[in-house]
Amino acid sequence: MSDLDRTLDTVDANLEASLDRLFDLLRIESISTDPAYKDECRKAGQYLVDVLNDVGFEASLRDTPGHPMVVGHHDGPEGAPHVLFYGHYDVQPVDPVELWDTSPFEPTMKEVDGVKRFYCRGSSDDKGQLMTFVEACRAWKEATGGLPCKVTILFEGEEESGSPSLEDFLDSAVEELSCDLALVCDTSMWDANTPAITTALRGMASDEVTIHAASRDLHSGYYGGAAQNPIHVLSRILADMHDESGAVTLEGFYDGVEETPDDIKQMWDGLGFSAKDFLGSIGLSMPSGEANRSVLEQTWARPTAEVNGVTGGYTGDGFKTVIAAQASAKVSFRLVGKQDPHKVAAAFRKHVEDRLPEDCRATYIEHGRNPATQLDYNLPELKKAAGALTEEWGKEAAIVAGGGSIPIVGNFKRQLGMDSLLIGFALADDAIHSPNEKYELKSYHKGTRSWARVLAALAG
Amino acid sequence: MSDLDRTLDTVDANLEASLDRLFDLLRIESISTDPAYKDECRKAGQYLVDVLNDVGFEASLRDTPGHPMVVGHHDGPEGAPHVLFYGHYDVQPVDPVELWDTSPFEPTMKEVDGVKRFYCRGSSDDKGQLMTFVEACRAWKEATGGLPCKVTILFEGEEESGSPSLEDFLDSAVEELSCDLALVCDTSMWDANTPAITTALRGMASDEVTIHAASRDLHSGYYGGAAQNPIHVLSRILADMHDESGAVTLEGFYDGVEETPDDIKQMWDGLGFSAKDFLGSIGLSMPSGEANRSVLEQTWARPTAEVNGVTGGYTGDGFKTVIAAQASAKVSFRLVGKQDPHKVAAAFRKHVEDRLPEDCRATYIEHGRNPATQLDYNLPELKKAAGALTEEWGKEAAIVAGGGSIPIVGNFKRQLGMDSLLIGFALADDAIHSPNEKYELKSYHKGTRSWARVLAALAG
Repeated sequence: MSDLDRTLDTVDANLEASLDRLFDLLRIESISTDPAYKDECRKAGQYLVDVLNDVGFEASLRDTPGHPMVVGHHDGPEGAPHVLFYGHYDVQPVDPVELWDTSPFEPTMKEVDGVKRFYCRGSSDDKGQLMTFVEACRAWKEATGGLPCKVTILFEGEEESGSPSLEDFLDSAVEELSCDLALVCDTSMWDANTPAITTALRGMASDEVTIHAASRDLHSGYYGGAAQNPIHVLSRILADMHDESGAVTLEGFYDGVEETPDDIKQMWDGLGFSAKDFLGSIGLSMPSGEANRSVLEQTWARPTAEVNGVTGGYTGDGFKTVIAAQASAKVSFRLVGKQDPHKVAAAFRKHVEDRLPEDCRATYIEHGRNPATQLDYNLPELKKAAGALTEEWGKEAAIVAGGGSIPIVGNFKRQLGMDSLLIGFALADDAIHSPNEKYELKSYHKGTRSWARVLAALAG
Repeated sequence: MSDLDRTLDTVDANLEASLDRLFDLLRIESISTDPAYKDECRKAGQYLVDVLNDVGFEASLRDTPGHPMVVGHHDGPEGAPHVLFYGHYDVQPVDPVELWDTSPFEPTMKEVDGVKRFYCRGSSDDKGQLMTFVEACRAWKEATGGLPCKVTILFEGEEESGSPSLEDFLDSAVEELSCDLALVCDTSMWDANTPAITTALRGMASDEVTIHAASRDLHSGYYGGAAQNPIHVLSRILADMHDESGAVTLEGFYDGVEETPDDIKQMWDGLGFSAKDFLGSIGLSMPSGEANRSVLEQTWARPTAEVNGVTGGYTGDGFKTVIAAQASAKVSFRLVGKQDPHKVAAAFRKHVEDRLPEDCRATYIEHGRNPATQLDYNLPELKKAAGALTEEWGKEAAIVAGGGSIPIVGNFKRQLGMDSLLIGFALADDAIHSPNEKYELKSYHKGTRSWARVLAALAG
């Protein structure tokens, strides 16, 4: 029997006990955004320190201006790769609490249609997920006395509140935390039977622009026809951001955007994704973005320009014949590949300035500048991890992308020079951030087995 | 000495006593929008009934579902024209009361830089103005025993709250109120020394349009690039309403719009109007509407399309990466000449529908449909009245237009088949609807003399 097989057997044998350990963690009310739960956050961090030390890590709490980090180290065999595993122990608030069917911080196992799942805030995001990795390490240790890789663990306590301490902490621990590769467990499977590795995440540049015209709101009877209307100016600016094919018109916008390799596109086509279902569930019938691109390409591999909010003039009930002094819009650009968020934001501001008539001026508020992350599709570790997942689930691992951002991946790349493999076992219906959050028992059990296999594969 | 000269002398001799009568009216707190002042409104109406009867009218209160109307009749010489004089005895609320320098309902005469003016809510809008006509009638009666025209008077008590009872009341009194011509005293002089007759008022069609796309707000990371963004659709619709020359693009929009006669345009050019000052006072430097039109033409004689409000998506502080389910705009069209407000509104809705992509739909709320009013520049009564004003003020009366609407003029035309001459003595700085409303003593005194002359001129 191989080390891995013995380890997998140990995972199976440990399932009940490992659930007990997870449930104890879930009961700690570590809501990071609410100062009232400060002590609970620290308690969750300390609980994980104790668990890691129990497994055999050298772990400790690290204070930050906010909630503490958990850092643990475990040696690996000579020449084995060194991986950094990341997760977060803080959770979202539980409001509206009256919509929960069970107590939000009391893990409750239920079997529905033959499927076992446990309900609790944090069960999926991210305590359940991070414990799959910890329990995989425990099984390796119990079964073989060691880990196949050198492993460093970083658990954060502020992910749900914007990670305010993360950047400084990483800067202070570059030496300690820089590894060959990061493993992040905070994403989903493709579906309940298909494991997935997320290799690309769109970045974002976002700005708020305000167009100013007259020095005060005007009566449209008295001034209408002669005075600049900033809503008109703004409408032209926003309308001009896309051409008729749905492409974004900003100068140089597509610089750094590469076409998705054909084999990846073919894999996406084979995922059984239904644009009709995806759009149908939100009341739409056809994709509206760039022409001649599949929906997966549009949302995973293509950049966008979206107006997320617009306001100007009178917006209450009834009518007011006013010409507004100003009008504003919140605009965001989802970025892919090597697009430079600063250049995109500058191109947007030039787009605005080029369309400003006399007597109007624009002011801006910068809201974000994050580049996309894109793993090399040929990275050997990606193939190894995908193989391990395929082995465990009996179905080829999907190499997917994400439409949104996971900032930690950018931090690891920028500050620690590491790529990240995003492997997670959540499902789309886990209701993270919502009432009745749950995690499938299968996600937890086979997730733990998956990590046991991934560690072996990376070492191989 | 002519009848008119004796009448004018009587106006002068009566000035102090006439001010006392006006001040008693001003002290009545006839705020029509606030139900707490219902009795005060009736009191003001009754006071005017008594004043009119004292002058020699047959006057009475007429109940409506809201505040009562005042109607009075006075005979004139055989063959003399029959005029209807309109004013309103209700006033605006006085908030914010702490910004008043004197008690809002205690008329207070002040002399500033040699100019006497009296401060009180309603002093200019419209009690002071309507009393100029009543006192002109009194002087005619005292000086000559009669009036040169047959005169009917209508005072409304709901003008400041949208005239909800007016239309039904006029319908019920077509016979009694239909005259040869209406005289309305609710407008301004061109400047402190130049009398004015307003001959054109822009009409208005206004709509609220909402563009609906997805069935709920979407996360722009997950759906951005594939899902319709209704703010984009709305921006294109609004941007397309004007072409590069500033002209409105709606189909058939300019049907019924006539060019202003050259002699009128020349008169406007001679008024000494400064576009620079007009725009400069609101922080602008140049007209932005239709190219090659003067500002007076743009605001008095040309139709417009204005977006008065726009809203969609997230508009609070910070940023939210949302794709909104809907976005909406309030749009109004100022109309001139014979433009049909219903046709213009229909053209707008067609403009919207023509630009709706698949998966989007539009809903509308109708906010108003009022045609423009435009007096025939060659109407003999206009020339007679202008001559009378020129005589009184020693400066040629300006024949002007107004950018906004005065609904009563449309009601008189539509329901009673009458044209209206709009003659008023207010000044732009009278602060109507604001704290410290005032009326110039000169406006009151020479206004009364003006009406004495206008009545004589119309009879001649």
